[in-house]
Order: sequence, then C-alpha cells, then structure tokens
Amino acid sequence: RRIVVHTQDEFEQAVKTVTAGDMIVLADGVWRDFDAVLEGEGSAEQPIWLTGETPGGVILSGQSSLRLSGKHLIVSGLVFRDGYTPRNEVISFRRDSKSLANSSRVTNTVIENYSNPDRTQRDSWVVMYGKNNEFDHNHLSGKLNSGPTMVVRLNSEESQDNNHHVHHNYFGPRPVLGSNGGETFRIGTSHYSLTNSNTLVEYNYFDRCSGEVEIISNKSGGNTYRNNTFFESRGTLTLRHGNGTSVEKNLFDGNGAPYTGGVRVINGDQTIRNNGFKDLTGERFSGALVVMNGVPNSPINRYHQVDNALIEGNVFENIAAIELGEGSDAERSAVPINSAFKNNVIMNADGQTPFTLHDDMSGIEFSGNKVNSEPPKAISSGFEVLTDLAQKVAVDNYGVAREETGVDWYPKATAKSPFEGGSDINVNAGENALFDAIAKAKAGDHLWLDAGDYNEAKIIELRVPVTIGAKPGAEGKVNVSFERRNLFVLSGQGGLKLDGLNVVGSKAPDNVGNSLITTSAIGGGSNHLLQISNSTFTDFVVNRSFSIVSAAKGTLYHQIKIFNSSFSDVSGSVVKLDAETDDYGMYNVEFLEIENSEFKNVKGPAVDVYRGGRDESTFGPAIVIKSSGFDGVGDEKEPAINLHGVQVLKLEDNTIAGGKQALFTITTGKPQPHLSGNAWIGHEGDTILKIEDLRK
Amino acid sequence: RRIVVHTQDEFEQAVKTVTAGDMIVLADGVWRDFDAVLEGEGSAEQPIWLTGETPGGVILSGQSSLRLSGKHLIVSGLVFRDGYTPRNEVISFRRDSKSLANSSRVTNTVIENYSNPDRTQRDSWVVMYGKNNEFDHNHLSGKLNSGPTMVVRLNSEESQDNNHHVHHNYFGPRPVLGSNGGETFRIGTSHYSLTNSNTLVEYNYFDRCSGEVEIISNKSGGNTYRNNTFFESRGTLTLRHGNGTSVEKNLFDGNGAPYTGGVRVINGDQTIRNNGFKDLTGERFSGALVVMNGVPNSPINRYHQVDNALIEGNVFENIAAIELGEGSDAERSAVPINSAFKNNVIMNADGQTPFTLHDDMSGIEFSGNKVNSEPPKAISSGFEVLTDLAQKVAVDNYGVAREETGVDWYPKATAKSPFEGGSDINVNAGENALFDAIAKAKAGDHLWLDAGDYNEAKIIELRVPVTIGAKPGAEGKVNVSFERRNLFVLSGQGGLKLDGLNVVGSKAPDNVGNSLITTSAIGGGSNHLLQISNSTFTDFVVNRSFSIVSAAKGTLYHQIKIFNSSFSDVSGSVVKLDAETDDYGMYNVEFLEIENSEFKNVKGPAVDVYRGGRDESTFGPAIVIKSSGFDGVGDEKEPAINLHGVQVLKLEDNTIAGGKQALFTITTGKPQPHLSGNAWIGHEGDTILKIEDLRK
Ligand SMILES: [Ca+2]
Ligand SMILES: [Ca+2]
Repeated sequence: RRIVVHTQDEFEQAVKTVTAGDMIVLADGVWRDFDAVLEGEGSAEQPIWLTGETPGGVILSGQSSLRLSGKHLIVSGLVFRDGYTPRNEVISFRRDSKSLANSSRVTNTVIENYSNPDRTQRDSWVVMYGKNNEFDHNHLSGKLNSGPTMVVRLNSEESQDNNHHVHHNYFGPRPVLGSNGGETFRIGTSHYSLTNSNTLVEYNYFDRCSGEVEIISNKSGGNTYRNNTFFESRGTLTLRHGNGTSVEKNLFDGNGAPYTGGVRVINGDQTIRNNGFKDLTGERFSGALVVMNGVPNSPINRYHQVDNALIEGNVFENIAAIELGEGSDAERSAVPINSAFKNNVIMNADGQTPFTLHDDMSGIEFSGNKVNSEPPKAISSGFEVLTDLAQKVAVDNYGVAREETGVDWYPKATAKSPFEGGSDINVNAGENALFDAIAKAKAGDHLWLDAGDYNEAKIIELRVPVTIGAKPGAEGKVNVSFERRNLFVLSGQGGLKLDGLNVVGSKAPDNVGNSLITTSAIGGGSNHLLQISNSTFTDFVVNRSFSIVSAAKGTLYHQIKIFNSSFSDVSGSVVKLDAETDDYGMYNVEFLEIENSEFKNVKGPAVDVYRGGRDESTFGPAIVIKSSGFDGVGDEKEPAINLHGVQVLKLEDNTIAGGKQALFTITTGKPQPHLSGNAWIGHEGDTILKIEDLRK
Repeated sequence: RRIVVHTQDEFEQAVKTVTAGDMIVLADGVWRDFDAVLEGEGSAEQPIWLTGETPGGVILSGQSSLRLSGKHLIVSGLVFRDGYTPRNEVISFRRDSKSLANSSRVTNTVIENYSNPDRTQRDSWVVMYGKNNEFDHNHLSGKLNSGPTMVVRLNSEESQDNNHHVHHNYFGPRPVLGSNGGETFRIGTSHYSLTNSNTLVEYNYFDRCSGEVEIISNKSGGNTYRNNTFFESRGTLTLRHGNGTSVEKNLFDGNGAPYTGGVRVINGDQTIRNNGFKDLTGERFSGALVVMNGVPNSPINRYHQVDNALIEGNVFENIAAIELGEGSDAERSAVPINSAFKNNVIMNADGQTPFTLHDDMSGIEFSGNKVNSEPPKAISSGFEVLTDLAQKVAVDNYGVAREETGVDWYPKATAKSPFEGGSDINVNAGENALFDAIAKAKAGDHLWLDAGDYNEAKIIELRVPVTIGAKPGAEGKVNVSFERRNLFVLSGQGGLKLDGLNVVGSKAPDNVGNSLITTSAIGGGSNHLLQISNSTFTDFVVNRSFSIVSAAKGTLYHQIKIFNSSFSDVSGSVVKLDAETDDYGMYNVEFLEIENSEFKNVKGPAVDVYRGGRDESTFGPAIVIKSSGFDGVGDEKEPAINLHGVQVLKLEDNTIAGGKQALFTITTGKPQPHLSGNAWIGHEGDTILKIEDLRK
C-alpha cells in the first residue's frame, strides 16, 4: 500500500494501520511542529517506508522531530529546517526508553540549520539506538547549538554490540561552538565505554566540522572508521574511551586551515593504518597524530593508558605536529606501552620535524618509517631520513569524494565570504539614514555613505552581513551618532564591516553599560564576523561602562578585526567580551585581531576577554594585538588589557603609556604568550604583560 | 476638515496638507510598526487634531511610536499595546532635537504593557519637550523595562520654564524593575536641575507604581505636585534635584504594602504642605517623610543641603518612619538649615514614634505639631503629645479618586492573584503528560495530577501562571522526571506553583549547568512568581552545577516561596540567582522565602543570590530563611548560603550541620541582618552567618 497523508492526524492514523510492505508518503509542503513517530514491524523483504512525495518537497519545520520504533523501517527524502527540535534529538532511533528501532534505515534526509536559537541548549540531530541500523546518504549541516550533531548511544544492552552502519553522509560545516559539546559525531559515553559498539563509519565527508577539539569522539569499543574524508576540520578523530577501534584509509586534509588535526589515540588495542594526513596545522591535542599519556589506574572518565596501539602505513605530508606522550603531567604519567609505529612516511616541505616527545616513548617500537627531516634522538633508530623524500599523500587512495556523499538533490555548503555577493547601495546623510538603509539591506550588501551627519534614533538590528563604509572621497567625513543604548545589535546571521567612519557616543542615553555594537541571544545568533577599519570613536563617556564592542551571554564572535582605527574617551572597554561568567568553558570570541590602532583615555581594560573553566575542549580565544598604542588606559582597578583564560596570545610592537600594564591570567591549557617589540613608557626594561598562572 | 486615513501612507499624505482646524482620524483597526509623526501649526482656537475613529478602536502595535512637532496639536483616543517602541520614547513632544511641540495636548490615550522584551533596554513611554503642553486623562500601565514611564525634559532653553500641565492621568502598576531606572515620572535631570521647569502635576493616580525607590524623581525647580494619590506605591516622591517645588494636598496611602513611602526632601525652598500620609510601611529612604542630609558644596549630581524647607499641616496616620538627617555619613554631613516643621499631626496606632534623627536637627524649627507618642528628646519641644489623639487622614480631603483619572473607556488594573480564575484540570500520569497539559493551559489554571510517573522529553515553556499539584490522595505519589536541560522555563507572564511532587534529576542530560526551573530573557519576562511546597527533589548530580531554580540574566522573580520541601543530592545550588554579574545594581529576585525545608548533600551554596553595584535605587533582594536544615551543604569553595548585596535578611531557627557556614557580603545600603534561634552543629556558640562588609 502507498498511503499519501496530508495532515499530522492522517499520518498518525496511517501509522496505526501500517503493516510490512506499506509506504507512508508525506504530501509535499511544510509540516510545522510535527512530533512524528513511525512505529511498525516490517520485514527484511517487506520494510515499512516513510518518504516525502517528491525529493526536497517535504519540509519539517518549527518544533518538529521524528522518532522510530519497531523494525525494518526505512525513512527517506525528508528535510528538516527553519526551526529546531523540542526534544533531545531531531531524529531518534527510539520512541522512548522502552521502544527502540532495530534493522532500520534513514537515508536521503537533510537536517540543515535546525539549531536551537539558544546556543547553550543542548540537543543532537540524530541519535541511534537499537541494533543493525543504517544511516546513509544524509546531509547534516550548520549546527550552531551545543551537543554532538550525531550520536550512537549504548545506554542499554539492546543498543550495545549494535553493528550500525553509518556511510556516505555529508557532514556540512559545524562552526566553532566556543565550548565543549561541539562534536560532529560521538559513539558511546565514558560510562559504557568498555562495551563494544561495533559501528562501521565509512565513506562520510566531514566538511569544516570545527565545533571543538573532537571532530569525532569515539567512546566505545570495536568501531571502524574507514575511507572518511575530513576537510578543513578542526581537531581530531579522538579515540577518547574504549578499546579495539580501527582507523583506516581516511583522508585528513586540513588545507592549511587553523587547528586542523588527525587522530588522537588513547586506550588499548587501537589501530591507525594506511591513512593520509596532509596540510594539517594543528598542534598539541590537535596534532596530525597525537598519542596521549594515560592516568595510572584511570577512573572510567579520565585517560586510560595507550596499550597495544598499531600505527602503521600512514602518510603524513606537511603536517605541523605529531605529539607523543601528549598531556604528560603529574596525573597523566602512564606512557604508551606494547605499541608500534611502523612503515609510516612523514614529509614536511619546510624540513622541520613534526615530532615532539613529551615523555619516555620506549613503549612504542619504531621501525621502517621514512622521514625527510631528523626526528628526535630517542626514536631516531626507527626512521630512515631521506632528504629527497617525495612520497606525498595520493589523495585518491584515501577517504571519499565530496560528491559521492550526502543527498544528490540538496546543495552542499559553499565557501564564499558572507560579505560578498550583495549590491552596492548609496546612502545620503540624514536622520535615521542608516536604520532606513539597513531595513532594506540584503546579505552581502555594501552601503556606501556620503559625507555628512548620520544620527540614529533607533537601534539597528543586523540579521545579515553588511558592509557600511565611507564612499570614496568621503573618508573621514562621515559622522555617526546614536541616541539609544546600542547602535548595532548583531543577531541571526548578522555580520558587520565598518570602514572610514567617525562615530561619537555623546548622544547615547545617560545609562550605565551602553555599547555601540553588541549581539543578541534572541533569535539564534550565528558565529558573527565584525571588522572595523579606518575609523575613529570618541566621547563614549555619558555614563559608566560604555563600550564600543560587547557581547550578550550565549553569543559568539567568530572573528573581530580592528585596524587603522582610534578610540578615545571611553568610560568602559573598547572590546568587552566577558559575558560568560559561569566558568563552563564558554567564551564570546574565537579570533580577535587588533592592528595599528590607538587607544586613549579608556577607563579600561581596552580589551577584556574572559574564558572561564578548565576544560580542554576549545582552541580559542586567540588574541593578536600588534603595532598599537595604549595611552592612559586602565585605572586603579583595571589593567590596560585583561585576558583571562585566553589560549593563544600574541603582543607585538605595542606601546603602553600612562595607565596600567596588561594582565594575562592563565587558567587552563598551555598557552605560550608571544611577546616582541613592545614598549612600556616609563618602565623600560619591564614587560608590558603581567602573567598570573592559576593552574595548579 | 475631517480626514479619515486607512494606511500609514495616507496618514503621511494627510499630515503634509493639514492646516489649523483639521482633524486627522485613524481608521479603526491595528496599525503595526507605525512610526507616526504629527507636524503642523494649529492655533488656540483652531488646533490640529489626531484621533481614533472610535474610542479604543485604534491600536498601535509592534514597533510603533508617535512624535509631535509644531503647535496647538491635540492627540486623543489612541491605544499602544502588543509591542514596544524602537525609539527612546513611545510618545514624544518633539520630532527631533530641532523640531519641538508647543501648546500641544495628548489626552485619552492608552499605553499598556508596551514594554521592550529586553528589560535592560531603556526607553520612556511619554517624553515632554517644548512649552505649555498638556498631558491629561491618559492611562499608562504595566511598564516592565528600564527607563522612567514618563519624563519632562529640560535639555534646551526651548524646553525650560515650560508650564506643562500633567493631570488626571492613571499611572497603573509599574512592577519592581530590580535596578535603578524604574521611576514612574521624572522632571529634569541633574544636569539642568538648577533650571526651573514650572510643571504642574495634579489629580493623577499612581496605582502600585513600585519600580524603584523613586516613584517620582523631581530633578528641576518650581514644580507643583498637588492632589495626586499614591496608592500602594513603593518609594517616595523624591525632590532629588532643583529648588522651590511644592507638594500639597496629595494622598500617600500605602495600604500596608511593603516599602511604601511619602516624600523625600533634598535641596532648597521645598514646601510639603497639607498632605495626607497613611499606612506607609517604608523606612530609611522610603519613609513617609525623609529629610536628607546634604553634601557640603555638593556637585550637581550629588545631594544638595536642605535649606528653607517648609513642612506644614500634614497628617500622618500609621506610618513606619519619619527620617530626619537621613543618609548622614562622612560625605553627607550638611544638616538641614532654615527649615520648619510645623502644625503637623502624627498618629500611630501602635504608639511607637516614627521619628528617627540621624544627625543634628537644630536647623529645623519644630512647632505646633501633635503626636500620640513621645518624639525624640532633641525635638520634643515642638510637639504636643496627646495620647488620645484621634485626628486621622480624612481621605476625601487629599489626592484624587481613581475613577476620576485615566481613560473612561479603558479598564484599570485589578488586584487578583495571577494563579486564580482559571480551570481545574485533571492530568493522568504518562510520557510528556505535563507538556501536553500545559500546552493547552490558560492563565490561572490548576493542574491536578494523579499518582504515577511523569517523564518529560521536552522543555515546558510557561508563558502564563499555572499551578501544578498532586490531586488529593496522590500527595507524595506523583513522580516527575525530565530529559532535557530544564523542565520549566518561565517567560512572558509565566508563573508556577508546584505542590506535592517528587522530582528526580537523574534523567537530565550529562551537561554542565542543568536547572529544573529557570527563566528566559527571550519573549519579555514579567516579574515571575514561583512557589514550591510539600515536594521532594533528589538526585540532581548527573553533571556539575545542577540547580533546582535559576534565572537568566535580565530576568526577575518577584517572589519565590519554598516551604515544607526537601532537596538532596544536588551538584550545584538549590536556588541560584547570580546571573547579574555586571555590577550595575541589578538582581534576579525581589523576595525569597524558604521555610521548614531540608537541604542535604548540596554542593552549594544552597541559596546563591548576587546583587552587585553600589546604587541605592532598589529595596531588594529580601531573603527570609526560617526553620530549615542544612546538612552537608557547601564545600571548600562554597558556603552553605551565599548572599551578596542583599538588602533585607532574616535567618530564624535554622540548623547547619556538616558543610559550611553561611556568608553575607554587604556591598551597599545599610542592611541589618536579623538572626535568631539558629544553630551550627559542632560550632555551638558561633554564629552561622559570616559577614563581610565591603562598604568603605
Ligand atoms: Ca568534547
Ligand atoms: Ca532612580
């Protein structure tokens, strides 16, 4: 039977009557708030189908989800978007804890941008329970909120030793989450990690899956990852818990993107064989290959010792780091044992060895490896150094091609800048001229401002990326003022480039905590981009704590760039990104770069970035401040710059006069601040950066 | 001409053509996002009118506002609701800083619940500029966000010495804001406070206007407040800045509500004459009459000395406090001078004197006053003590009757409990039974739960007040579990009473910072009410920082009551209200009462309340904890109870065993913790409350 249903009621009625061999067809259209449950008992020969009328014609939106229960169910051809799940999952292979799905399949299904608008609300888009289930040729892209995109659960016997098959899926971009919980795929949890999952994960494409340090968090035994491609994905396939997993013939292609890594090895009986690793820039926990130290007699949720690892036949080309004994410290003191590293090829064009030994590696037998640069002495006997080594990663031998994955009727993510592709729009000076222009602006538009005065009586909510700049010839003659607490609030997909403006804060209300540019947690913020160039900002003193750039709790700037700009007379901070005070490892900015800019009479800190908590799941925040001057910044309470828990810090060629020194509080990780060419007027010979280390 | 317009475009066209004597009529219906500007030059005989087609028939909603510019304009019959202004004001007596309105009038207009959903966004509903304007018979009710409800500005010469007339308006309930900025009416700012406004404010009714310590903030000279009624309004009519203002024949009727006050006197030449004050419970800054000390040579924004004040012929009946020389400290050392307090009558049924002298009051001449209890010695010569004094406030002689104010076709606020007036609904146990029941519930409904297991896979958003309780006979047999980060999220008008439930946290996700009950800043939260009684809460330990009750930044509980309940095994706090970390004087709870409850194995603090900043604009938070036990609460870092910046604290008959002591950090104000009958097991003789005083 082919049962076409047009309403949720019709669907529920149909489900009550389905038997083996039936197919329920959702009529084309938008199904809002559809809490769908497909229950039934099909057979291998006569499964029960749920499908859309035409490919891409059925959209589940609003608060929709789908649960499967029974056996031999097949779901295909659905699209989830324009909403988010009210449950812990969008697609679940169980109805509830008592009713699981087995021998069932989800294929040709799309979940795109179906993120809870509150980034801190945790959910997963696909959760597999039961046994012998298949998830293939699906498209999962754009998850912004907390929680792994896809999970295999082993929380009862009915879901263990499950033989699931996950293949030919397209895992589209997963932007930085800014905390733990940004994994793209996870199998198991520490609690059940000594149980085997036996899931086969193959021919999947991971495209910019960069939520956190774990692209995949493997937390169970007996899994196989083979022929997957990881492209420009930050972090690693992490064998976090469980034993006996195999990683073979995968391609890890970082394409030179920041923090890209390969495989991180922990626990016993892991095999890493015949993989290709190329153009990976990650170090430490995000190296191309990371073999961790363990904790002696580790509790189940800490680090188990590496024992009987086989790392063989892999090719590494232009990779930043192979870390051996990583994490070695007083607690993580159990070095790898009974392991082998053999017949691997490591070739770096820069002639630098990627190897770092963090501890005694005599428990790994090195043999038959080829390198083009001298490895560390302690392991060099297992390497042949060939300075003319030419063996590169033969891409076709590894992973899977992008176009062989996902859903063929649904487009994959592109790579263009969000500030491009719009129209050029001329704007004349006047009351609310910016508000009126932006009300009509589309993503990527560039507003070219004529010389003159722009006063804004309303807050401008930016839900798309736009550029606002002085017209050629009007640079320095565009004067902007505003009358409300903020001028710009970034929400949704909002992004902003400002160029060539003079902004004054003097018309803002007499209110504590005004901020020129901020973000809103209302409406589901993406990873915002902000750039400020060739602009001046003066007279932000109408009340206390006036800032130029700030963020709401629960929001994240992916990147803030400020250059060739000046800031004077500010009663608070120029950049105030300290809203995540819970110490849950969250923060408000991934990359902050300031160059060639001047800060004068700022109560300070001029830059205030807070990343609390001690977990090791994120790469950022990363801060670079170069060739900039700080004059009269900070006071008896505030340093000139206040960086708490920042992971990457570079201060180059800056000058501090008057005011206070900068402060860097180290809380977690191993950040190594890079300082050069800085001057502290009146304190020559002293460093401008005071470091406080709160790690034990 | 009578020009009926049906669209915003037609309105704009009409405005372009209006001349003296014309009337523009908005057609009945909802006008969304209407950025209306009425400009024109009428005359005294032939004004220009803007009105609605029928009374109450025209609704301005969404992002609407109205600006007036020109002269002799009259606006009447509009209703603003279901939205909020995108500007600094809803109705403004100017178009922009260059185009003001003069000799214009707004009457019979309603602004109700037109609050920005972000409580911290500041705006005002009515702002008067220009001169000789009139605002009468209007209805302004339910403002929840920051900023005075109504303001008279004096920021240019064209707006000074303005002779505005504000009369017969109904100022409906203004709930506690939880920070400065909750005034109902303000005239002037400190900057222009030595300028005269000469505004006449009479026959207005202030009904529960309790946003902060200032009901009215008078910040200019020469104003008259007469025949206004202040009913159950917290705080005072505050003569904050400026000289020569007169307060006469007003009625201050606190009706016994908390923190209700009368008049606070600062500056020179103020007259407080022939007013009636009754049933006012406020003390200190919120006394029935407060005469402040000044700062010698005060800067314009601090406290100017009281000089030549005349306080005469007032009747005080059953009032808690008359504070003289209030605020006296090292900075505020200038006592009142050249002043008189005469022919007043003060009668308290409890026979207690309300007078407190905080400093030398010889600069006030006391004469001809009558009291029924002995005043302080230093001033007693000016009083005749008549123990049988019977002169009460003759209500009809003062103020104005409620029904003579506001808009006669629009209903005024009522006083019923938000948990009343709904239906009784029976609920049977089952998966998502609460979610499904609440999806259909209406304000005031009472859900009666049958015995059994309730597991909730979805977060329940509560936008209306509901009661959820065990059915008679099912008490203690209603078991509730939940699978997401929260079970209940209060937003909008949400409120919750829970009674007779057993709640476990064990099915919540393995996620840091889960919370059973929280609030959302999305959607415009009111002042939420929460009550928990006769319930048990166990096993909230799945991950760190699990709490039972928490709040999002920018939200406020008006009252939380917890009694006859027990909490055990909690990895965070039971009540965690510390989201306002900006130190802007904001906080998340006004009244918190815990009675007869047990806390066991709570990582702690069991109660964590944070009120940062040093301003003196709020009354709360107020915390009462009685007859409760704390066993194993707190750890090496956390006290058993952590109260920071709380203003009222009572700890009675509590027991602490194991764990840690309670901590009270005093930051501002003069809180006087009341402690009695508490016991600290193993530390007998020690106080259970450690006090840290951060005031200088
Ligand atoms: Ca992780
Ligand atoms: Ca105030």
